[in-house]
Amino acid sequence: MRNAFNSDLSQMRANLVTMCRTVAESVREASEALFAQDLEKAERVILADQEIDEMQIAIDELAVELLARQHPVATDLRSVVSALRMSASLERMGDLAEHIALTTRRRYPEQVIAPCAQDTVRQMAALALRAVEDAAQVIETRDLKLAALVTTRDEELDALRQDVFKLLYAEENALSVQDAVDLTLIARFYERLGDHAVSLVRRIGFLVTGSTLDPHSPATEVEVI
Amino acid sequence: MRNAFNSDLSQMRANLVTMCRTVAESVREASEALFAQDLEKAERVILADQEIDEMQIAIDELAVELLARQHPVATDLRSVVSALRMSASLERMGDLAEHIALTTRRRYPEQVIAPCAQDTVRQMAALALRAVEDAAQVIETRDLKLAALVTTRDEELDALRQDVFKLLYAEENALSVQDAVDLTLIARFYERLGDHAVSLVRRIGFLVTGSTLDPHSPATEVEVI
Repeated sequence: MRNAFNSDLSQMRANLVTMCRTVAESVREASEALFAQDLEKAERVILADQEIDEMQIAIDELAVELLARQHPVATDLRSVVSALRMSASLERMGDLAEHIALTTRRRYPEQVIAPCAQDTVRQMAALALRAVEDAAQVIETRDLKLAALVTTRDEELDALRQDVFKLLYAEENALSVQDAVDLTLIARFYERLGDHAVSLVRRIGFLVTGSTLDPHSPATEVEVI
Repeated sequence: MRNAFNSDLSQMRANLVTMCRTVAESVREASEALFAQDLEKAERVILADQEIDEMQIAIDELAVELLARQHPVATDLRSVVSALRMSASLERMGDLAEHIALTTRRRYPEQVIAPCAQDTVRQMAALALRAVEDAAQVIETRDLKLAALVTTRDEELDALRQDVFKLLYAEENALSVQDAVDLTLIARFYERLGDHAVSLVRRIGFLVTGSTLDPHSPATEVEVI
């Protein structure tokens, strides 16, 4: 019984790692498509979201089966409940990558990101991708040092979002409304990707250290400015 | 045992209804503050988010206790898992109300919504509030007709978001970048509130009709345009 449970739990964790890596791949491709006005790549990201949604359903069904058959308690139960939460975050992260690709498709063949903001948004894209890749690593290895790094680095992402707002409002940039709208949304998508990655690694942290079930804390909330 | 379970399940449902009504109240106040540049009311919404976060933690702890003590299976198990999902949606909806209030505070004493978009955003605010109130009703009564209405009405909210984009891009409106940015974000927050309300009522629908665990479907996704 115990062995069956451990094997199911390992399977669930492996599925979460695979799902997180698939999301990272979508984020990478969505960013590449965004900066290269690559319509084909954007279409691939949009199609791949279906696959991510199916991964969530599979994880959730495994979790429900596991709860029904094995009646886990204490830490084991918290692991299963956390997996349900993490699959929901990952599904939403897939949507965010898809939203970036949809913006690229809508503006094609125009460039989405105005020249004045290219550097800043590229940095946001790189940090968001790294956060998702590191989150996969944390789910796999439970490396709490890396988890702490993901949380700290998210502050850089938030600072870059503030930089985007400065660029938006700088008169010398004279952005069109369309550029301003897209820049606002794309910056928000990357910021949300970072928030979700932080929420994933905090969940692992709380599982390992045995703190409260829900690591929701004001510190993970980001003001929209 | 069965009675204890039913009583816990009723308690959990009652907590979800209370949480959803509290979120509706925050949405109402956030919208009132937005349109009246009411700083005090905006501050109240920002403070109230803490309370909503605590409600989520309480629901999640009740769910975990229930799983640990009663080992529910089949429909009962799905109800508990759904409650976990719904509390996460509601927590996020509280954040969205807070984001609206934060925008009001940041722009104070200026008006956030440009005059040309006031009517459209007021309609969005009214529809989003109604969706959240109706969702509370659906959680309480499992009224599937009302659930279907919430889903249908969400299309109106999406159509209004498209109207906002037309307003943004209409040259005669000559919006400032700041007005464009805030209008983009506020419209997105109301749209997301509607999406979450749809996800709540679909979850109830799937519980009642016994369909798949996770009602994630492309139809509930809204393109970002």
